[in-house]
Amino acid sequence: MGGDRAPGVVIEAAPALRDVVLVGRPELLPQGLGLPVVPAPEVVEMGDGATAPLRAKPRSSIRLALEEVAAGRAAGMVSCGHSGAVLAGAVFVLGLLPGVERPALVSVIPRGDGGSLALLDLGANVDCKPELLAGFARMGAAYARVVMGLEEPRVGLLSNGEERGKGNQQVKAALPLLEALPLRFVGPTEPTDALRGAVDVLVCDGFVGNVLLKTVEATLEASASLLRRELDGHPLEQLGVWLMSGALRRFRARTSASAFGGALLLGVNGVVVVGHGRSDARAVRSAVALARRCADGGLPRRVAEAMAGGGG
Amino acid sequence: MGGDRAPGVVIEAAPALRDVVLVGRPELLPQGLGLPVVPAPEVVEMGDGATAPLRAKPRSSIRLALEEVAAGRAAGMVSCGHSGAVLAGAVFVLGLLPGVERPALVSVIPRGDGGSLALLDLGANVDCKPELLAGFARMGAAYARVVMGLEEPRVGLLSNGEERGKGNQQVKAALPLLEALPLRFVGPTEPTDALRGAVDVLVCDGFVGNVLLKTVEATLEASASLLRRELDGHPLEQLGVWLMSGALRRFRARTSASAFGGALLLGVNGVVVVGHGRSDARAVRSAVALARRCADGGLPRRVAEAMAGGGG
Repeated sequence: MGGDRAPGVVIEAAPALRDVVLVGRPELLPQGLGLPVVPAPEVVEMGDGATAPLRAKPRSSIRLALEEVAAGRAAGMVSCGHSGAVLAGAVFVLGLLPGVERPALVSVIPRGDGGSLALLDLGANVDCKPELLAGFARMGAAYARVVMGLEEPRVGLLSNGEERGKGNQQVKAALPLLEALPLRFVGPTEPTDALRGAVDVLVCDGFVGNVLLKTVEATLEASASLLRRELDGHPLEQLGVWLMSGALRRFRARTSASAFGGALLLGVNGVVVVGHGRSDARAVRSAVALARRCADGGLPRRVAEAMAGGGG
Repeated sequence: MGGDRAPGVVIEAAPALRDVVLVGRPELLPQGLGLPVVPAPEVVEMGDGATAPLRAKPRSSIRLALEEVAAGRAAGMVSCGHSGAVLAGAVFVLGLLPGVERPALVSVIPRGDGGSLALLDLGANVDCKPELLAGFARMGAAYARVVMGLEEPRVGLLSNGEERGKGNQQVKAALPLLEALPLRFVGPTEPTDALRGAVDVLVCDGFVGNVLLKTVEATLEASASLLRRELDGHPLEQLGVWLMSGALRRFRARTSASAFGGALLLGVNGVVVVGHGRSDARAVRSAVALARRCADGGLPRRVAEAMAGGGG
């Protein structure tokens, strides 16, 4: 039921989905979708508080989808709705994994070297004490092992320079904690080096991570606009763009938000994917695929192992 | 003397410079450059502390260039060297303007709508109490009036959402302070909206601002790499790129760091431009042009007026 274009985009995505249970208002779904439906009479609206699935709307689609996961009837859940409500609901219904103080949102962005960078936290915790960043590093490494298939992911701590003297108080306090972890910690890392391929996992607080992710998206969007402006009144150059449109299409497919299936909520005892509110059908399919990959890889168990000090 | 390619890039830029005094080691400069030289026997190295121009190296080029400004013999100074030393030296030699608690670094980045966004602080203050952000807003608005020619620049406070409930503790505490200022404050602003054109000045702490600026640069670099990869083995698409290379060149000219002349140090009683360490000759020329524009517009006086509560 969530997202700016719900349930339309979910209906559009449905034919390509298998082994998926839809949770929401049955009267809004067309006949013959071929997918089972768990009826949920309530909907968490964007104006609702984050605790709506806990108290005011216990029969909302967010709450009931999480119950499916908790009961073991679903391997994971995907929502493109109220992310704060999904987060609060997930902690309430699924519970935190042992050793996890706060859950974190992680997503991957494309690096310039063709690899991927897992970035966390993306906004679950906008104010973080240094200890939380160490937890994010453990969980992020487990995510990179399961989802990105890396045996020994390189983890960096986002900073404004790679020298030890750089960084704000938070980074300086977190640095020794991350250095003491049983993982391949690269050190303080600038965005430039991270996007060139110096690390596989980049750790920061949720405010900075959210700003970083949105800045990547905003820069891609602004670049496309500016390039279009430069083409105005240059027909030969426009022909050039037409000739290379295949490359641009492949580039967009690689870099668009809908390619990445949204953010995964790390630290709860279940697989929860928070899709973008502006998700289209492709993004919904990517989100389902991401949830499936995390479930198949036993991500919650791997995160719990990582938090217990093992390799995850 | 500063920067990775000094003094070569300065020498290369020299023929295009007028009314410029070079400060540095005379023996490293070729004859017949046509520019007067203030000899400075010492050089602040990147490994030196930020206080080197104050104590250990009082005859360094950074210190002596600042003295030229303080004595009124130069209208402003440009350095591509140790930015921490330039900052500390500028506060020591030129002093802070009345009402300024901490100076800030500001630079402009291109927006998708063809306009420019002034972003501050870029790293002079990696840990900021909320009051400092209000000072940055005043100084940033004065900068936008003088350098960007805007009468009533729109100022935003960087946040992870435009709703009042979003933002970290710092943003929430700064919000009422910025709302009380005598300027056109738009409210909490996401990077996406800022780069689409919603604001002319974006205020944040120096850690986040540094990360944001480097993320823009990193995304542009990564996009170019990824697009090149997509072209591999597609000769027709490569031909397309060749046909549109003029647009790409104009786009790079608009968006490259060297187009912007580095960052300006706001809040000190003089015009100080901190160029990128990787500056080329074009970046040096841009930095000199920026310093001249700030000096001609009486920027320090306008900043002092803005801090005193006026329009700047």
